[in-house]
Amino acid sequence: MSDNKTTAGRPALLFQNNSRRDFLRKTGLTALAGGVAAACGVPDSAAQGTTAHSTDHSGGTMAPNPAPVSAAAAAEEMDRLHEAGVKSFPAKTAGKGNQLMKPRIENGVKIFDLTAKKIRWETQPGQTVEAWAYNEQIPGPQIRVREGDRVRLTLKNELSESTAVHFHGLEVPIDQDGVPFITQPPIKPGTSYTYEFTVPNAGSHMYHSHHNAAQQVGLGLLGAFIVEPKNPLPIEKVDVDYVLIMNDGVHGYTFNGKSFPATEPVVAKLGQKLRVRFMNEGMMIHPMHLHGMHMTVIAKDGWMQPAPWKCDTLNVAPGERWDVIVNCNNPGTWAFHCHILPHAESNHGMFGMVTALIVK
Amino acid sequence: MSDNKTTAGRPALLFQNNSRRDFLRKTGLTALAGGVAAACGVPDSAAQGTTAHSTDHSGGTMAPNPAPVSAAAAAEEMDRLHEAGVKSFPAKTAGKGNQLMKPRIENGVKIFDLTAKKIRWETQPGQTVEAWAYNEQIPGPQIRVREGDRVRLTLKNELSESTAVHFHGLEVPIDQDGVPFITQPPIKPGTSYTYEFTVPNAGSHMYHSHHNAAQQVGLGLLGAFIVEPKNPLPIEKVDVDYVLIMNDGVHGYTFNGKSFPATEPVVAKLGQKLRVRFMNEGMMIHPMHLHGMHMTVIAKDGWMQPAPWKCDTLNVAPGERWDVIVNCNNPGTWAFHCHILPHAESNHGMFGMVTALIVK
Amino acid sequence: MSDNKTTAGRPALLFQNNSRRDFLRKTGLTALAGGVAAACGVPDSAAQGTTAHSTDHSGGTMAPNPAPVSAAAAAEEMDRLHEAGVKSFPAKTAGKGNQLMKPRIENGVKIFDLTAKKIRWETQPGQTVEAWAYNEQIPGPQIRVREGDRVRLTLKNELSESTAVHFHGLEVPIDQDGVPFITQPPIKPGTSYTYEFTVPNAGSHMYHSHHNAAQQVGLGLLGAFIVEPKNPLPIEKVDVDYVLIMNDGVHGYTFNGKSFPATEPVVAKLGQKLRVRFMNEGMMIHPMHLHGMHMTVIAKDGWMQPAPWKCDTLNVAPGERWDVIVNCNNPGTWAFHCHILPHAESNHGMFGMVTALIVK
Repeated sequence: MSDNKTTAGRPALLFQNNSRRDFLRKTGLTALAGGVAAACGVPDSAAQGTTAHSTDHSGGTMAPNPAPVSAAAAAEEMDRLHEAGVKSFPAKTAGKGNQLMKPRIENGVKIFDLTAKKIRWETQPGQTVEAWAYNEQIPGPQIRVREGDRVRLTLKNELSESTAVHFHGLEVPIDQDGVPFITQPPIKPGTSYTYEFTVPNAGSHMYHSHHNAAQQVGLGLLGAFIVEPKNPLPIEKVDVDYVLIMNDGVHGYTFNGKSFPATEPVVAKLGQKLRVRFMNEGMMIHPMHLHGMHMTVIAKDGWMQPAPWKCDTLNVAPGERWDVIVNCNNPGTWAFHCHILPHAESNHGMFGMVTALIVK
Repeated sequence: MSDNKTTAGRPALLFQNNSRRDFLRKTGLTALAGGVAAACGVPDSAAQGTTAHSTDHSGGTMAPNPAPVSAAAAAEEMDRLHEAGVKSFPAKTAGKGNQLMKPRIENGVKIFDLTAKKIRWETQPGQTVEAWAYNEQIPGPQIRVREGDRVRLTLKNELSESTAVHFHGLEVPIDQDGVPFITQPPIKPGTSYTYEFTVPNAGSHMYHSHHNAAQQVGLGLLGAFIVEPKNPLPIEKVDVDYVLIMNDGVHGYTFNGKSFPATEPVVAKLGQKLRVRFMNEGMMIHPMHLHGMHMTVIAKDGWMQPAPWKCDTLNVAPGERWDVIVNCNNPGTWAFHCHILPHAESNHGMFGMVTALIVK
Repeated sequence: MSDNKTTAGRPALLFQNNSRRDFLRKTGLTALAGGVAAACGVPDSAAQGTTAHSTDHSGGTMAPNPAPVSAAAAAEEMDRLHEAGVKSFPAKTAGKGNQLMKPRIENGVKIFDLTAKKIRWETQPGQTVEAWAYNEQIPGPQIRVREGDRVRLTLKNELSESTAVHFHGLEVPIDQDGVPFITQPPIKPGTSYTYEFTVPNAGSHMYHSHHNAAQQVGLGLLGAFIVEPKNPLPIEKVDVDYVLIMNDGVHGYTFNGKSFPATEPVVAKLGQKLRVRFMNEGMMIHPMHLHGMHMTVIAKDGWMQPAPWKCDTLNVAPGERWDVIVNCNNPGTWAFHCHILPHAESNHGMFGMVTALIVK
């Protein structure tokens, strides 16, 4: 896999899905596209599942007389599209979410300042969408504190509608729970609101909007809130600690705000221990499958399981967090993807919820 | 939260979804509705998910020239709708399901008489649907017996089609299993049928139709069948024991037959132990998220787990039952909802699968 | 239940779904069909869920003046259709998948030869679909080896497009992982490719296409890859070992490639121990419910659980494998089905993901 990006040719004629158009652009082959679809015997839309990619026809001119395409040529073209996707991974895009946020510290209080505003967000090369973001990142900046820390978080609302922040999984006092009209007033456009609490419980948690949330979370108002335990268990001492947040709304099928080939690979050295913290901020289950090595499940929603257990496909439902350990003992570039296949591959190659664990 | 109900104004012009229309009616503000939707940048249908609310246009007259609405006014209106929903919780509706049924006892046999018939059922204020019910309740009356009890249950079928009762989770003899043409003849319209068995296994079980069941269960032919163990474990000695049955068919997203704001809050005193018995009678998963406190999972389908484990979001699949314990140690009114957000909130506020755990 | 098959009458007039037409054909009653649907009060499509049966109108002539049908006649007709389905179970169809494949052995290496090609496949009586199959079976032949075995598997690709084989769950070296352009070139049409490895880990695994996989796996390129452990645990010593593979793509809702009533019953003698290996090759969850007896869950994705646990409804997500033990101590013919009811029953009777456990 390299990072080469080829420039676009002319736009595809027949596909509405941008991920496909991108692939077609990269390979510069568009005339065959219709033949490819026809040869597959399955409707184009079925292969893509229900992802909400925008339908951007982008004004291509229709070829007057598309030549008939042989099955062999169509198969070749399909392979080229698949290869182009893989070769471009990890593809560069503007913006990176889930960046660790360093707090200001005042009188022992860790202070986090967030601004919610509307931005443009590139989910994969050439696919830029409207997004609502904390600090212009999707997911929002990663908050990482320690059990017992005093935390102050101020949200400045620069959106055109009200919002609020819920600390999903944290057992905060009721007035810090972030549910408008139950625990606080909504944070009106143009205003700020400050939360402050002592972090009560360790684990992999989340912060996200709890106002008009089906839309606001779908548009990007979400992030990881990791609480390190005062007394970590031996199994928690790892070399690489990776947060993987899934979403499946209007931005398509994403890991940490990006779709394959723009997803970020997880990288570890041979023999290292990796912790992955899965978090589902979407509306659908995503059974995450790792190739080549199993995962040892140690925690659910921030709480240690009574005994670790092993799997290679872990079903993560909306709102859930699961922590797993991977002993990176099998070298290679391993596919790591949602196993609902229409979330991960079309007849034009892998897309959406696909990344790789690279064990060097 | 109070129990105030405002009366309806004129019907909404632009929304097909009754839950929205109700909110709009309550606040008497309908002219702004289009502006609200437009401002959200997300299709109305996407925000609502795929719930099967009936599309009742209810004859509103179209406003000839809707005035343009500013983003600020739209945001204010959205907040008012959200607030109206919360303030009306728990809203009064006609009918209450899942009421504990006291059996007649003859010669030591606990006798339950059920009648299945078509009724009208109010799922939320002003939203009345066709329903098929046991004893005019949705869910049907709660049956609660003890391991080893002798039970006789007679179903009188006043529906227009055949039915049968399956005791989901109970390991009864084959002739009591309730599957027409395999274990018994169907119970024809106008006839009765009697089941009788010694209750074989403890736990949180269900009874429901097993004939044309995708429709009959969706329309309401379901209820809880709780079997108390002869020798309860210490962890099972709780102060509050609550049954929460989910459904997601033609009646919309419901808890115990009602949609927010007509759902019933779970109420406990500070320091009490609460047991929730989740039961999914629908067609979709519902990952149940409790704010403020974690849940300790003790049983699956009536069988104790080998070791209790903790979570705050519990994925409940169709046909599953999960029993959890909550130590009610965090005072407040805590949101308690399905975390598939389109099952719980639209841009007009919370609806559907939302209730609260009130710790006083 | 018997094995009688009635011959078809004239084609149904009003239903697009083949499973319904089949039922109607069997009973020779089609004029009442419209009345049945109308009497049920729920749209026909809702009752069937979203299965992708082809819409084959099959050229019936429309009855000029369908007679009005009473509710009683409609109910009777519904029961007849339900009964016809049950009585025809297990219905004969052409082709049987998941047959145990005996390897050739050369120099201690177990050799499996697979050919991928396009075939016609009968999913239920009279319903024949386009399928892509390994060795003309859906699921492909069952591969069953032992931990530590040396295995060589050659795939001959007679399809019109490229493919590749991924050994889902096996921790093989990276060059045997079967992901085109990452671990190997695609296997082009008309060519063969050989995999060879020492089987690294025991358990219930799968092999399937990992190229254009949303389509290729949906069309049938999948099979079980069972690895018996060198040292089985006492709990693994069973009398009957059954593999049950679910799929939910263009072939409809299937168990081992067949839809009810053409599914295969699981048969055990009273007192025997049964192991079921559930494998989900589809795109949706399927919570499997067994009547009459509970299941003891022992393994996930081929890895033993830390402690066995019991349930009667086991949620199986795409890509997952779950192994359960059933102590067959309750005699009878027990329904065994997906509890997403629209995957298992329509108003014309059981269909799709239904089979039975017969304890004699």
